[in-house]
Amino acid sequence: MPSPRRLKIAVSGLGRMGARHANHFLHRTPRAELVAAFSPDPKEIAWAKEHLEPWGVTLYKNYEEMLKHEGLEAVSIATVTTVHAEETIKAIEAGLHVLCEKPLSTKLEICEQVLSTARSNPEVKVMCGFSRRFDASYRQAYTLTSRGQIGRPTILRSQTCDRYDPSGFFVQYAQFSGGIFVDCNIHDIDLALWFFSSAEGNLPRVKSVSAVGVTALEPGLKEHGDVDNGVGIVEFHSGQIAYLYSSRMHPTGQHDETVIIGTKGALSVNNHPASNLLEIAESNGLRKEIPQTYYGRFEAAFVEEARQFTEACLEGKDVPVDMDSSVEAVRIGCALQESLRSGKKIWFDEQGNRIEESKALRARL
Amino acid sequence: MPSPRRLKIAVSGLGRMGARHANHFLHRTPRAELVAAFSPDPKEIAWAKEHLEPWGVTLYKNYEEMLKHEGLEAVSIATVTTVHAEETIKAIEAGLHVLCEKPLSTKLEICEQVLSTARSNPEVKVMCGFSRRFDASYRQAYTLTSRGQIGRPTILRSQTCDRYDPSGFFVQYAQFSGGIFVDCNIHDIDLALWFFSSAEGNLPRVKSVSAVGVTALEPGLKEHGDVDNGVGIVEFHSGQIAYLYSSRMHPTGQHDETVIIGTKGALSVNNHPASNLLEIAESNGLRKEIPQTYYGRFEAAFVEEARQFTEACLEGKDVPVDMDSSVEAVRIGCALQESLRSGKKIWFDEQGNRIEESKALRARL
Amino acid sequence: MPSPRRLKIAVSGLGRMGARHANHFLHRTPRAELVAAFSPDPKEIAWAKEHLEPWGVTLYKNYEEMLKHEGLEAVSIATVTTVHAEETIKAIEAGLHVLCEKPLSTKLEICEQVLSTARSNPEVKVMCGFSRRFDASYRQAYTLTSRGQIGRPTILRSQTCDRYDPSGFFVQYAQFSGGIFVDCNIHDIDLALWFFSSAEGNLPRVKSVSAVGVTALEPGLKEHGDVDNGVGIVEFHSGQIAYLYSSRMHPTGQHDETVIIGTKGALSVNNHPASNLLEIAESNGLRKEIPQTYYGRFEAAFVEEARQFTEACLEGKDVPVDMDSSVEAVRIGCALQESLRSGKKIWFDEQGNRIEESKALRARL
Amino acid sequence: MPSPRRLKIAVSGLGRMGARHANHFLHRTPRAELVAAFSPDPKEIAWAKEHLEPWGVTLYKNYEEMLKHEGLEAVSIATVTTVHAEETIKAIEAGLHVLCEKPLSTKLEICEQVLSTARSNPEVKVMCGFSRRFDASYRQAYTLTSRGQIGRPTILRSQTCDRYDPSGFFVQYAQFSGGIFVDCNIHDIDLALWFFSSAEGNLPRVKSVSAVGVTALEPGLKEHGDVDNGVGIVEFHSGQIAYLYSSRMHPTGQHDETVIIGTKGALSVNNHPASNLLEIAESNGLRKEIPQTYYGRFEAAFVEEARQFTEACLEGKDVPVDMDSSVEAVRIGCALQESLRSGKKIWFDEQGNRIEESKALRARL
Repeated sequence: MPSPRRLKIAVSGLGRMGARHANHFLHRTPRAELVAAFSPDPKEIAWAKEHLEPWGVTLYKNYEEMLKHEGLEAVSIATVTTVHAEETIKAIEAGLHVLCEKPLSTKLEICEQVLSTARSNPEVKVMCGFSRRFDASYRQAYTLTSRGQIGRPTILRSQTCDRYDPSGFFVQYAQFSGGIFVDCNIHDIDLALWFFSSAEGNLPRVKSVSAVGVTALEPGLKEHGDVDNGVGIVEFHSGQIAYLYSSRMHPTGQHDETVIIGTKGALSVNNHPASNLLEIAESNGLRKEIPQTYYGRFEAAFVEEARQFTEACLEGKDVPVDMDSSVEAVRIGCALQESLRSGKKIWFDEQGNRIEESKALRARL
Repeated sequence: MPSPRRLKIAVSGLGRMGARHANHFLHRTPRAELVAAFSPDPKEIAWAKEHLEPWGVTLYKNYEEMLKHEGLEAVSIATVTTVHAEETIKAIEAGLHVLCEKPLSTKLEICEQVLSTARSNPEVKVMCGFSRRFDASYRQAYTLTSRGQIGRPTILRSQTCDRYDPSGFFVQYAQFSGGIFVDCNIHDIDLALWFFSSAEGNLPRVKSVSAVGVTALEPGLKEHGDVDNGVGIVEFHSGQIAYLYSSRMHPTGQHDETVIIGTKGALSVNNHPASNLLEIAESNGLRKEIPQTYYGRFEAAFVEEARQFTEACLEGKDVPVDMDSSVEAVRIGCALQESLRSGKKIWFDEQGNRIEESKALRARL
Repeated sequence: MPSPRRLKIAVSGLGRMGARHANHFLHRTPRAELVAAFSPDPKEIAWAKEHLEPWGVTLYKNYEEMLKHEGLEAVSIATVTTVHAEETIKAIEAGLHVLCEKPLSTKLEICEQVLSTARSNPEVKVMCGFSRRFDASYRQAYTLTSRGQIGRPTILRSQTCDRYDPSGFFVQYAQFSGGIFVDCNIHDIDLALWFFSSAEGNLPRVKSVSAVGVTALEPGLKEHGDVDNGVGIVEFHSGQIAYLYSSRMHPTGQHDETVIIGTKGALSVNNHPASNLLEIAESNGLRKEIPQTYYGRFEAAFVEEARQFTEACLEGKDVPVDMDSSVEAVRIGCALQESLRSGKKIWFDEQGNRIEESKALRARL
Repeated sequence: MPSPRRLKIAVSGLGRMGARHANHFLHRTPRAELVAAFSPDPKEIAWAKEHLEPWGVTLYKNYEEMLKHEGLEAVSIATVTTVHAEETIKAIEAGLHVLCEKPLSTKLEICEQVLSTARSNPEVKVMCGFSRRFDASYRQAYTLTSRGQIGRPTILRSQTCDRYDPSGFFVQYAQFSGGIFVDCNIHDIDLALWFFSSAEGNLPRVKSVSAVGVTALEPGLKEHGDVDNGVGIVEFHSGQIAYLYSSRMHPTGQHDETVIIGTKGALSVNNHPASNLLEIAESNGLRKEIPQTYYGRFEAAFVEEARQFTEACLEGKDVPVDMDSSVEAVRIGCALQESLRSGKKIWFDEQGNRIEESKALRARL
C-alpha cells in the first residue's frame, strides 16, 4: 500500500516558539513528518526527550549534524534571532528548504546576505514566517482586496500591542530584539507590503519613514534606544501610507489590529478582539476576554503556515511569503527604529536608496 | 407676530415617571405647552413648586379641578396604575385628549371600559404610552419590516429584563403590578402585535398562550402569584409566534432585546446593549456598560412619544398606538399570567374567545 | 525507540460527517491512529480509496468485518441515524469503545437499549457526540459556571438555527430526523442538562415540556409532523427553565446561540456571531459574515471531541459526555416533538414518568 | 408668578449648522430663549421666516444691528469660518457672551487676536464649539480618565472620517477650510489637549508635528495644498503622543473614533460605530448602519453644548472649553497642514516657539 509523500523536516531551537513549531509539524501538519530537532540547551533537550523522541524524532545538540540527518528535506528555524541568518544560510547551502521565524535578522546587511544565498539556490524554498499572513481573517481580507472589493488599497493602519509584563522582561529582551519597530511593527510593515503590492506583484517602494515613541512604564528601554510605545508613518512612492502603533503596555492582552482603507471600501481585522464567542454579564457591565499572547491570537495561523510551507516544498510551488518582501520589511523596520532614535524623518528614492531630506524635498517640487 | 399653535397639556401624577413626562412636555416638546399638573402627594407638589411652577405651570391637588383648567386640551396620565383607567375616562368625558402610561389597567374588563368610552368619543385622541414603539431602533426595524425587507414576520423573540434590586422593591410592587407578564412583557406583547399586524392593519388573533416561571431570588413573589423570571409563548392564528422572557434579576442593568424573524431576513434590536459608544480596556477584558433602568434605555423614546402624541392632537391625525392593540396586549398579558399561575395552556378561538383545550384540539384536526 | 501509545480507531460511515471524523482521527488527533473505515456506499469507498487508504487505513464494506480488524480498540459511528444504535450495540458487544454521532436514535426505547448494553459493559467507553460541549466558548462558560461565577444557573435560552436551504432538502430529511426538536434542539437540551446538573453531577429532572411551531417556508414538513420554526419550553423540577428555538430558515447562516442566566450573573455564547475577525465597511453599512454550516461553526469542537474521547479511552477516564444525559436529551426532545404535534403540554413526575396534567396540577397545590 | 431666568441669545448664520443651532436654542435648551437671528442670505432669511419668526425670533440682515437687540446677552456664531473671528470680536466688544463654531479661524494670528480680545473682557464668556467634548461617550471617557482609571494618558489615536461625497464638494470647500488637519483633525487635536492636560489643568506643550497625506479620489485638492487622506503625529514635551487620521472618502459614513491609552488601561470611543441598536441579518451577513454625517453622529452633543454654554453664562461659571486650548488646537492643526505641504517635521520648544530641527535635535542630546 503506497504511503502518501510526507516532507521530512527538522526543527532548530526548542524554546517557546520552537517547541510549538515542533508540535505543529509533528501532530498538526498531515503532509509533514518531523524527523529531527536541534537545541543547544539541555533543558530544551530534556523537554524533547519527553515530547518528541517517543514519536520517533531524533534529537541533536549540534546544528550541522542535524542538517546531515538522512533524508532530511527541510528545516524550521526558531532559535534566537541572532543566529537565524547563519542557520538559514547553512541549511540553504545543504540544499534544505527553510522556514525561518521572523525576522531573518535585525540587521539589514545580514538579511541581504541571506537573500543573496537564497537567490543562488533557486531550487531551495526559503520563507520567513510572517504568521499573520496565514490568519483566516487576514487571508479573507486579502482575497477581498485582490478581487477589488475595496478599490485601491490606500491607507493601512496596523498595530501590534503586547500585554504589559511587569517582570522587566521587555527591557532585557530589548538588547536583542532590534527595537519595537523591528520586533513588533515588522508584522504590520509586512502587511502593508502585502496589501500595497501591485496587481503584478511588485512591492511598493518606501518614500519616507518617521517615528516617535515614549517610555511610559519601562524607562530602562531608553538604554537600548527603545520605547514601550511607538508610532510610525511609512509613506510609499505609490501614493500609499501605512501608519503603525506598537505597545508593550496593553492592559488587557494581545491586541493586534489592522484596517485597510481603499478607494471604495475598507476592511478591518480584529477591531473587536475576543478570545472566543463568550460574553460575561456582570454587575459592572458586559465583558469579553481577549487573547493574552501573540500565540494565543495566532495559533491557527502558525499551523496554517506550516501547512502551506510544507505544500510548497512538496509540490515545488512558490512559497507564499516572498523573501524580497521580508527583507524589505526589515529595511523599513530598521529605518523606523533609526528615525525614532534620531528624531529625523528618513527619505528614500524610488530605487530604495537613502537620500538627504533636502534632495527629497527638491524632488517634490 | 403670530405664535405657532402649541398644545395645552397637563400631567397627572408627578412621581418618577410623571415628573419625567412633565419635563418632556415642558422643555422637550416644542409644540406642546405644559399648563397644569396634578398630584395628590405633598412631596410631589413640593417638587413641582420648584421645578414646574416657575415656568408657568399651574399645580392642582384635585384631578377634576385640573381637568377644568382653562384652555386645557390634553392630559398625560402617569399616576399609579390602579387609577389610570378612571382618570382616562374622566378626561375623555371632559373632551380632553389622553396619553396614558401603560397599562391602562391590569384588569381586562376595565381596559374594555376605557376602550368603550374612547369609541364613544371619537373626536378625542386616546393613546396608551407604549414607549418602545418610539425608540429609533424599533422604528427603523418597523420601517424595514413594512417595506418587506425581511419577508413575512413569523417569529418574534423579546425580553424585558430589569436590573436586580436587592431592596425587596419588586415584592412590594408585585401587589399592584399585575404580575411580570402584565408589567414587563406587556411591552414585548405590544411589539408582537405591532410587527405581526397585517399590511391592512389587522391585529393578529391570539390562539394560545402558555407560561412558566420561577422565583430564583425573591420567593416572596409567590404570595402575589408572581415570579422573578418568566417565560411565555404566544401563538397566533395567523401562523406567527412570539416567545417572551422577563426577569427581575438581570446582573448588569436593563436589557430589553427583540428579534423579529421573517421569511427572508431578520432584525434584532439591542442584542448588543450599551449605554453609549465607550469601551473600557481593563486587565480582565474589554467592558461595556449598559443602561441601568428602563428610562435610561428609553429616554429618547419617551420624548419622541410626547412629540408624536402632540402632533396627532394638533393635526387631528390618528395616534400612533391604537387602543385596540393596547387592550389586546393586556388580554394576552393577563392570559400569560393566568397560565403561569395555573400551569395550563390557554386557548382562544379566532374571535378571541377563551375555549377549552379539548375544543381547541378538535379544531386542529 | 518506544512509540507513544495511540488508540486504534475505525470510522463507520463516510458521508459528510463521517469523512470529517475520519480526517480528524487521521490527521488531527495525535494520540489516535485511524486504522479502518467502513461504508456501504461505493461512492464513499471511492473517496476513501483516495483520501484514507494511502495513509494506511483499511477499508471495509461490511461493518461486522471491520469490527474484527486486528487490534481495533474503538469505533466512531457516523452512519445514518437509523443505524446508530444497532452499530453502537454491536461495537460495545465486540468490546470496542464507541463515539457515536448524536442522536443515538430518534426513538427513546432504542436509546434505552443502548444505555442498557453500555451499562452491562462498563469497561467499554460509550459517548454520544454532543459536539457543542467541546467548543471553547461553551467550555469556558461551563468552567465559569462551575466556579460559581453566575450563582445558580436558572434560565437557559438556546437556539439552533440552520441557514435556509431552498432545495427542499429539509423536507426529505424530516422523514428520518425525528423532527426539529430531536434533530436541532437536542443540542440545546443537552446544554440545559449540562449546565443545570447539580454540583454532585445529578441531572435535573424534567417537569413539563410544551412546544409550538410553524411551517413558514416549507409546508411539506407538515406531512412529517414537523415545522421549520419551533419554540419550546422545558421546565425542571429543580426550579430551572430552558427555552428553545430552532429554525430551518435563518437568512444568514448557522446561528446557534445560548444564554445561561444565573442568580448572580449571566453568560452568553455567540450572541455576536462571526466567521472570523474581519469586518467589511461598505456603502450601506458595516458587515460581518457568519458560518454557513454547523460544521463551519463547530469544526474545532469536533476535533476537540475526538481528542478528549481518545484520551478517555487511552487513560481509562470517564468520557466527558455521560450516556444518561444523552438519553435524557432524547426523551426531552421526543416529548417536545410530541407536544408540538398534539398541542398539549406534557408533564413528568420527579422520577421521570409521564403523568396526566390533572395529576400534575394537583401536585402543585 | 416668577419666571425662571432664561438667557437671551441670538444666532448668527442660518446655514446648515446655524439653522441647527437656532433650533437647539429655540426648542431644546430650556434655560435659553432664542430672541434674534442674523443672516445675510435671503434664502436663509426665508427659511427663518417660516421656522423662527413664528416663535417670536426677530430676524436681522445686519449683524451689528442684531448685536443691539434689546436685552440680548449672548450670540452663537455659525457663519462661514472666514468671519467667525470678526463677529466674535464684535460681540465680545458689545459685551455679549459668545459660542463660536470651530475653528475661530484657520489662521493662528487671527485666533490670537480673538484670544486677546477675550482676555481684555474677562466678564464675557467666550467658547469655541468643540462639540465632541459634549458627547456622552467622550464625557464618560474623560470622567474615568480624571479619576485615574487608566493611569496616565500617554497615547491618543483619533480620527475624523467623512463619508465620500462624489459631487466635488470637498474640493470647493478646501479653498476655505484651512485644509484637512485644520478642518477635520482639529477635533482630534482638541481631544488630545483635553485628555493630555495635567491634573492642574495645564495644557501639554507641543514638541513636534509631522504629517503626510494623499489624494486618492480627489486630485483637485492638491491645488489647495490639501489631501483626502491625512496622517499626522503630534508629539508633546510631556512624553505624550497623539496620532491622527482624517479622511474624506469613508465608504460607509461618518466614522470618528478615538482611543486613549494610559499606563493602566485604555478607553475607546466609537470603535464599533452604529446609528442605533438595530442589526440586520441578510443573506450575505449581519449589517449595522452608521451615521452618515457629523451632525448625525453628534446631534445630542450639540444640544448638550448649548445647554452647558447657557448654564455657564447664566451662572457665571467658567465655560467648559477653554479658549487657550482652542487656539492651541489651531496652532497644531496649522503646523500639521504646513508639515503636510512641506514634507518637513516641525519642532517647537517648551514655550511653544517654532525652532529649527538642528536646534531641537541638539536639545535631545
